[in-house]
Amino acid sequence: MSKNLEISLLLDFYGDMLTEKQRNMVDYYYNDDLSLSEIAENEGISRQGVRDSIKRAEAQMLEMEDRLGLAKRFRVMSADAQEIYQLAQTIRQYSDYPGAPREVGEGAARIMALADMLQKA
Amino acid sequence: MSKNLEISLLLDFYGDMLTEKQRNMVDYYYNDDLSLSEIAENEGISRQGVRDSIKRAEAQMLEMEDRLGLAKRFRVMSADAQEIYQLAQTIRQYSDYPGAPREVGEGAARIMALADMLQKA
Repeated sequence: MSKNLEISLLLDFYGDMLTEKQRNMVDYYYNDDLSLSEIAENEGISRQGVRDSIKRAEAQMLEMEDRLGLAKRFRVMSADAQEIYQLAQTIRQYSDYPGAPREVGEGAARIMALADMLQKA
Repeated sequence: MSKNLEISLLLDFYGDMLTEKQRNMVDYYYNDDLSLSEIAENEGISRQGVRDSIKRAEAQMLEMEDRLGLAKRFRVMSADAQEIYQLAQTIRQYSDYPGAPREVGEGAARIMALADMLQKA
């Protein structure tokens, strides 16, 4: 996983522990792809100030993930949910055989909907 | 949910952000059901000191949950996983219909295993 993607993911989990200013700068830098200079201009602080702020925010989020590991836990759950979705999809494809009980097709469809929500949760 | 159960759950998510001493005291109090006096004796500090430490730890974890909401997110995911497990169980029970492809029963069994892991994750 690229560094950028990892920071974006950590921002999703731990961003609310940052100050609003820090969170915004990380968001501009990693999600909106603004340059340090552009952020500096918008925020009315120096380019170095922006860089320091972002570095501090990154370190804080990496430290939280190192201790709590919640982003990793979610990623594992999301991969499991994806596998569940695919299995349910296969079951559903087989459920329109003559003689297949409707519980099979209906159950598979509901599992697909739940697994889809889980992947996005 | 009772207050005690909630603190136990929060300890599972956010306990690693506490100091080891704080984490142990909360663990003794909420999970091992020791009294404040018993913990005070074990730790060699006053009963009031134990109480203050536990209260601070609780406040810190409640504040983190208030900001990040990760314990709640996990609880919702866990409830979804439980529903998936039950649906897959029903599919499995119906999977011996005449002409049923083995993918249906096998897929349902694998979904049950994954949903079970998800509930415990």
